[in-house]
Amino acid sequence: MTAAILSIGTELTRGELVDTNATWLAEQLIALGFDVPEHATVEDEAGVIVEALQRLAARAKVVIVTGGLGPTSDDLTAAAAAQAGAQALVRDPVVLDVIKKKYASFGRVMPEENAKQADRPEKATVIPNPVGTAPGFAMPLGNATCYFMPGVPREMRHLFRETVVPAIAGQAERNTHQLHLRTFGRTESRVAGLLQGVEEEFGVTLGYRASFPEIEVKIHARAATEADAERMAREAAGAVRQRLGDCIFGEREDTFPDAVGRALRDKGITLALAESCTGGMAATMLTSVPGSSDYLLLSAVAYANSAKSRMLGVNPEVIRAHGAVSAEVAAEMAEGARRISGASLAVSITGIAGPGGGSEDKPVGTVWFGLAAEGHPTVTRHRLFPGERDQIRTLAAYTALRLAMRSALGHVGD
Amino acid sequence: MTAAILSIGTELTRGELVDTNATWLAEQLIALGFDVPEHATVEDEAGVIVEALQRLAARAKVVIVTGGLGPTSDDLTAAAAAQAGAQALVRDPVVLDVIKKKYASFGRVMPEENAKQADRPEKATVIPNPVGTAPGFAMPLGNATCYFMPGVPREMRHLFRETVVPAIAGQAERNTHQLHLRTFGRTESRVAGLLQGVEEEFGVTLGYRASFPEIEVKIHARAATEADAERMAREAAGAVRQRLGDCIFGEREDTFPDAVGRALRDKGITLALAESCTGGMAATMLTSVPGSSDYLLLSAVAYANSAKSRMLGVNPEVIRAHGAVSAEVAAEMAEGARRISGASLAVSITGIAGPGGGSEDKPVGTVWFGLAAEGHPTVTRHRLFPGERDQIRTLAAYTALRLAMRSALGHVGD
Repeated sequence: MTAAILSIGTELTRGELVDTNATWLAEQLIALGFDVPEHATVEDEAGVIVEALQRLAARAKVVIVTGGLGPTSDDLTAAAAAQAGAQALVRDPVVLDVIKKKYASFGRVMPEENAKQADRPEKATVIPNPVGTAPGFAMPLGNATCYFMPGVPREMRHLFRETVVPAIAGQAERNTHQLHLRTFGRTESRVAGLLQGVEEEFGVTLGYRASFPEIEVKIHARAATEADAERMAREAAGAVRQRLGDCIFGEREDTFPDAVGRALRDKGITLALAESCTGGMAATMLTSVPGSSDYLLLSAVAYANSAKSRMLGVNPEVIRAHGAVSAEVAAEMAEGARRISGASLAVSITGIAGPGGGSEDKPVGTVWFGLAAEGHPTVTRHRLFPGERDQIRTLAAYTALRLAMRSALGHVGD
Repeated sequence: MTAAILSIGTELTRGELVDTNATWLAEQLIALGFDVPEHATVEDEAGVIVEALQRLAARAKVVIVTGGLGPTSDDLTAAAAAQAGAQALVRDPVVLDVIKKKYASFGRVMPEENAKQADRPEKATVIPNPVGTAPGFAMPLGNATCYFMPGVPREMRHLFRETVVPAIAGQAERNTHQLHLRTFGRTESRVAGLLQGVEEEFGVTLGYRASFPEIEVKIHARAATEADAERMAREAAGAVRQRLGDCIFGEREDTFPDAVGRALRDKGITLALAESCTGGMAATMLTSVPGSSDYLLLSAVAYANSAKSRMLGVNPEVIRAHGAVSAEVAAEMAEGARRISGASLAVSITGIAGPGGGSEDKPVGTVWFGLAAEGHPTVTRHRLFPGERDQIRTLAAYTALRLAMRSALGHVGD
């Protein structure tokens, strides 16, 4: 069963806005079992919209359309849909009343231009929009049913989930299952190399999505029934987990900070960070999770050398002798963070993020980490990260959090 | 002059990857003076690619195609292009030699499957790719010239700038000019409201791009010549600057941290931050700029209440009496950050980012800021931000940096 996606809006065709709706809709349609051979994006121009609608409706059974339902003069989708279906454009009195009441509930009178949002092709069915002003509508065209929704992502997603999914879910064959495993710590080619032979052994398809610095492994199974496909995907996932080991940190919805926080909370560990080149990024990541104050006490972002001494008690002589990016300073930063916080574990980061500041001995990308854990001697680790400033900082923050997670799980300093 | 964009790749049609190439290309083509009425995205399937190529080449003078030039069996773009143009597919011996030499320079032998990347339609012209393996090619088709490039954004951008732009730049009328002004601190509707009448007065078109929490104002002018258009855009920009005041922080390439850092450096100010709910985000933003250690000394990310006292010397009695999210604690945090850093200016942030932790008195979104500047009494500011955890944290970090910038520019505490 084939579906197509049509995005309408001059802000999209001019490149003023990235079309995240099409990507989101494609993922949903694939998960529902549809094939999605093409997307189209057209400007707010009636002729172009009509042509695209007719073309897509001739070859797909479901056409999902977003955008162009607003109140302004350049919103032409409803009129173009009517034209494509050779129907009259009518103003729906029920919808008009709903819009007027929405304005009234804010103590306002509906502006006259918003009446336009009650327009729909004569044979279309309204898709109510409880989270915005413009409703959507569904109408048959060619071989297809076309579903029209507003372009505002929050509203579009709501209407799609509440009305479109129930209408189309039965139409596609549901004989596939997909699992997602998220990894950090290996390159895409290394991950793919470690998984060679899994596709053949388990009869699944593997896909990789790089979202720097993470690599997501997708396991796609197709079988006679959805249950069979799920079983195949789960078996393959077992083999993938075994081959990739602990560079897998979670499944689809788990974020890396979630995984780190879970390990810390489960083991009753409190953490302090001491950050230099990352400038607070490790703490920002960890505190993206609600409730992270249960395990993260503080991060001392000691960006200037003076701050390393004043805030963390790093001996200025040690900085002078070894440089701020050194095992010795990383160790003193971690010990200082543990001392000032009273945390059971402290991790430090000091490195050269570039573009300047590198030398032959310590090129851009050099980062030292320190790990001070209750009852253990302080250890340090060294990495040389590739890439530019942003990438080096991100890799350093991830690596520090991974050190904290592994320490919590009993692999001290590994 | 009309251009069209075709993105090829099943990872795009399945929604596994957001198509940033099409957005970037559209912006470039618009800037070159082309109209771009539509983009298409198709899967790696020869029939679908051929049809899309023929359709777009029939109505545009320039078709920009990306993706499907890799070495694997699902990369079908070159073969489909040959089929669309009823041409033979030939293996270019010069290109093959270049690819082999690239591998040799890494001490490797070219894998046999990579030979495929030297394939092109017989009448196509090669577009050299100095930054990757797969070259692009250009070929006439229908009314158009089609330019084929790899989908890797870095390579695609290089080839577009180096080869495609010189080939197509002369074709479109260059009678437009666009200026971009970046703002923070007002909503899109408020910005649009303040700019009412500018379009009519100066004969320009205004556009708005929201990239949370920033609003970019685009001033688009069209005139008899490019020079006239630039003059019109500059005049309108003067009026826009006057109406929006200091919520404009820069032009197109300026980031908000750049602008804040410039103000601090120009005034010789050193800054310390004390962050709670933002968890280090303000410092992460500021340190995204190389050389930021000239003005940012440290950020004390005091996430737990104990850390506010231990690291910043906030009196635990004050926390007990007023709560961690209060003017009193914000003031003590800022003063503590200034004391431990020796900075000339310190800004603190303490708030409730949610989803939990709100109350009737202090709902989620409540944030207090403190500002301790050398030779001035400490001041505090209070905001109630809308949105979810991420948005509240981002707004709080921006607001803190804006307070620092305004203080540096002499508006203490405003």
